[in-house]
Amino acid sequence: MTDAPHVDRRARWRRQLGDLIFGLETPLARNYDKALIGLIVVSVLAVVVESVSRLPLPLRLLLRDLEWVFTVLFTLDYLGRLVGARRPLRYALSFYGIVDLLTILPSFVSLLLPGSQYLLVVRALRLLRVFRVFKLARYSDQASLIGEALQASREKITVFFIAVLTLVTVFGTMLYMIEGPQNGFTSIPTSIYWAVVTVTTVGYGDISPKTPLGKFIATLAMLMGYAIIAVPTGIVSAGLQEAQEARRQGRSCPQCGLTKHDPDAHYCKRCGENLPG
Amino acid sequence: MTDAPHVDRRARWRRQLGDLIFGLETPLARNYDKALIGLIVVSVLAVVVESVSRLPLPLRLLLRDLEWVFTVLFTLDYLGRLVGARRPLRYALSFYGIVDLLTILPSFVSLLLPGSQYLLVVRALRLLRVFRVFKLARYSDQASLIGEALQASREKITVFFIAVLTLVTVFGTMLYMIEGPQNGFTSIPTSIYWAVVTVTTVGYGDISPKTPLGKFIATLAMLMGYAIIAVPTGIVSAGLQEAQEARRQGRSCPQCGLTKHDPDAHYCKRCGENLPG
Amino acid sequence: MTDAPHVDRRARWRRQLGDLIFGLETPLARNYDKALIGLIVVSVLAVVVESVSRLPLPLRLLLRDLEWVFTVLFTLDYLGRLVGARRPLRYALSFYGIVDLLTILPSFVSLLLPGSQYLLVVRALRLLRVFRVFKLARYSDQASLIGEALQASREKITVFFIAVLTLVTVFGTMLYMIEGPQNGFTSIPTSIYWAVVTVTTVGYGDISPKTPLGKFIATLAMLMGYAIIAVPTGIVSAGLQEAQEARRQGRSCPQCGLTKHDPDAHYCKRCGENLPG
Amino acid sequence: MTDAPHVDRRARWRRQLGDLIFGLETPLARNYDKALIGLIVVSVLAVVVESVSRLPLPLRLLLRDLEWVFTVLFTLDYLGRLVGARRPLRYALSFYGIVDLLTILPSFVSLLLPGSQYLLVVRALRLLRVFRVFKLARYSDQASLIGEALQASREKITVFFIAVLTLVTVFGTMLYMIEGPQNGFTSIPTSIYWAVVTVTTVGYGDISPKTPLGKFIATLAMLMGYAIIAVPTGIVSAGLQEAQEARRQGRSCPQCGLTKHDPDAHYCKRCGENLPG
Repeated sequence: MTDAPHVDRRARWRRQLGDLIFGLETPLARNYDKALIGLIVVSVLAVVVESVSRLPLPLRLLLRDLEWVFTVLFTLDYLGRLVGARRPLRYALSFYGIVDLLTILPSFVSLLLPGSQYLLVVRALRLLRVFRVFKLARYSDQASLIGEALQASREKITVFFIAVLTLVTVFGTMLYMIEGPQNGFTSIPTSIYWAVVTVTTVGYGDISPKTPLGKFIATLAMLMGYAIIAVPTGIVSAGLQEAQEARRQGRSCPQCGLTKHDPDAHYCKRCGENLPG
Repeated sequence: MTDAPHVDRRARWRRQLGDLIFGLETPLARNYDKALIGLIVVSVLAVVVESVSRLPLPLRLLLRDLEWVFTVLFTLDYLGRLVGARRPLRYALSFYGIVDLLTILPSFVSLLLPGSQYLLVVRALRLLRVFRVFKLARYSDQASLIGEALQASREKITVFFIAVLTLVTVFGTMLYMIEGPQNGFTSIPTSIYWAVVTVTTVGYGDISPKTPLGKFIATLAMLMGYAIIAVPTGIVSAGLQEAQEARRQGRSCPQCGLTKHDPDAHYCKRCGENLPG
Repeated sequence: MTDAPHVDRRARWRRQLGDLIFGLETPLARNYDKALIGLIVVSVLAVVVESVSRLPLPLRLLLRDLEWVFTVLFTLDYLGRLVGARRPLRYALSFYGIVDLLTILPSFVSLLLPGSQYLLVVRALRLLRVFRVFKLARYSDQASLIGEALQASREKITVFFIAVLTLVTVFGTMLYMIEGPQNGFTSIPTSIYWAVVTVTTVGYGDISPKTPLGKFIATLAMLMGYAIIAVPTGIVSAGLQEAQEARRQGRSCPQCGLTKHDPDAHYCKRCGENLPG
Repeated sequence: MTDAPHVDRRARWRRQLGDLIFGLETPLARNYDKALIGLIVVSVLAVVVESVSRLPLPLRLLLRDLEWVFTVLFTLDYLGRLVGARRPLRYALSFYGIVDLLTILPSFVSLLLPGSQYLLVVRALRLLRVFRVFKLARYSDQASLIGEALQASREKITVFFIAVLTLVTVFGTMLYMIEGPQNGFTSIPTSIYWAVVTVTTVGYGDISPKTPLGKFIATLAMLMGYAIIAVPTGIVSAGLQEAQEARRQGRSCPQCGLTKHDPDAHYCKRCGENLPG
């Protein structure tokens, strides 16, 4: 394509910024992503440590300050992505774009509306930054392979969860009727919570059947949960093998996991991401 | 085939009704199924919410009235299915036909025989309506694929469960003998309940071995349960891949999951359901 | 082969008995096995029911008498197998032969050495009879397929369990050192019991770490157990598919699961069992 | 290669020692490894038994003495490996070389720095000796097959664990905010411990949500953990099949599991181990 020289220059400059922030081709870009991930982990650790009561005051103040350093750095990163993205709007509306925004906004919000509640929310949201790790993983073939597998068996997993939710509702109601509030099954929602704890084999034991009939029904719920634990596994196993097949046939989009691109395609037909290789 | 015109007209009218209620070909039919599922979910939520104690009276009355609206609507749906079904008797005796009947009968029963017990039963049975969701899922290739896989590995899973039940009975009896009533293992049924809780890795902790020997046997039970958790998974995984093979070879019946139909078959040879494509 | 007529006659008679007891070819033989399984289930239920305290005396006496009926019937079955087996010694030393003997001996032992302890042992051993169910299942292709899969991945599973035992011993000792007796980790065996409860994700909660370091190590144990839960599953899945491959190639022995027999073989080269088809 | 005769003699002598200790070709070498494993198991049992309080004094003293016998024998084994290894330095720095050193050092350390704490550490480290079992298993095809599978899906599993850690951190923080210290969620680290206990379906019940919102979020965590339990399984299943493929194509290194060696290779290109066959 033949653009005006200055447009071409701006385009090149923006592309270089985009390659630095989004890409992994050059060593510099790889180091940028690694540094970013290190920053995320440190910022999360800061939040976690801060929650431990009886910290010495200086450390508490240091962590408070660090929070602002992190906020500034992540803000610069976000602005850089907006400028460097091939399609800024698309990036801003993509999953990672929204996560990036969500994780810097609260720090500013907490400036205008102070209060411990809000500060806690800030911390929780900041933890979402860890999801950025996926952006590096995304580039690893192995990682995107898992993505494709889950992508491919999306409907299967949905159907499976509808079945589990139904099962859990039915069993929860049955034990609510059998055991009743005097045995800890205070309401159907609580009983459904018990059913999930049971079917997923977590089994806290904070609520457990006391009557013989309740124990019998609970046994059925456990055996059923034991059996259906096999279904998602089979789904993902089959999905992974299909994905490996698809991998051999064509490339997949690192942004949205779409596979089977035309051999001559340079950008993903669904989200415009630059396709590897 | 050459029918008398009025028969042909009635047949066409009934087929249109059948396509609306059973089919997913036209947008109208699809919307009908979606609305039905929405109705089921709402009616289930109504039951769940109603169980929460300390609800304001007006909300309680509203839910009571809603119950009757749901009953009427589901009754109309059931009658429509009876009329529109290609083979009404077959539908009435099919799994979904019985579920449909079971979920509307109790509301009328509770009219003749009032009493809180019965009302609760009504609620529990109504929850079965959620199984209708499968009827939509059934049309999704992914969903029926799971059905075929479980269908195909039916015997394997049966054998597996016989093995599990044996194991659980043996371990339960052993701990009943070792720990005895003073440690909570009051009878063999209770001990079998403990064994199921253990082998399925639920582990409530309401009953747990106290003696060293009991703990040792329990350890064996856990490791064994840990190992056999692998068996159903392997079964389903293999079953899913077989089903995907069969899928490539032939079509499967959306009603009963039967596969390998003759290429020229228009109806399922087992249940007479209309075959896709 | 040309035997003397009377030998031939005895051989024919024994073969008929063997076909009746071991085989599933004739309807009579199939019914024999079904009746036997029914008898096993009833006898096990009798033991289970008998353990429930506060049973009416007549029922208790009835169960006591039934025990002797079962013993006689199972003894006749065992003798019939000894006579009808192609190789009586081989049968007597096979897994099922030993189980059959073990499940009838105790009843007679309890005659000579009475005492509640012994009676309980009798009951526990009788439960092993349920394993006979496998003898019918064994003939079902699906069931023997599972057997072949586990047979094929025998070494893999052994290695896996050595790894699990090592892990459990290391983690148990670490928590014994970290938490100590005051937190319930009274000895290394008890701590290993805790580690098994944790790694198998049973999680009774009767023993759980209290110190921060103990909780951290426990977290590692859980995540590791979560990861290695995948290994046996993968092993069995792969094993099942290999077994299905082998099934397509050759027949497998219903007695010992040995596959890949020569096409012209009529008896298993390892255990002499009659090969199907 | 043509060395001076005495060098050649020393080389032959060292190779024979190496074959005895490292190899499994001759019966003598096989027996050496079996005896070593027996020794490891006995020494671990000694540590475990020693931890049980109220042992008779003579037994306690016997175990104390046995500890020194084990130490001497394992030291001789370690020296023999250093001398017999084709590349002593490489062995000393390999996983097993470091384990071997770690398991004999503490006994000597405890000589210089006595104290019950240190003695306990010695015991814990000695348990690592059991890992030697893998060195025998390593030679079994089945065992190394598992190694290759895990080797092959190393990245997949890493990505999976990053996802799990993120999930656990997010859920832990959410419940710390919702439930707070008064319900046992005393800090974010403690809440993350709870999240791990929940997502891995261990479910001790020492900490469990009390508020309705907390229970709802916990339900989501369980269902998510239930679903992602499928991912590592699918990964390992696929990995095992790939490894079996690779096995059919080429040989794998017993030391580091590297596969796809050139047909004419005699030593592993990565770690210099002698390749089988």
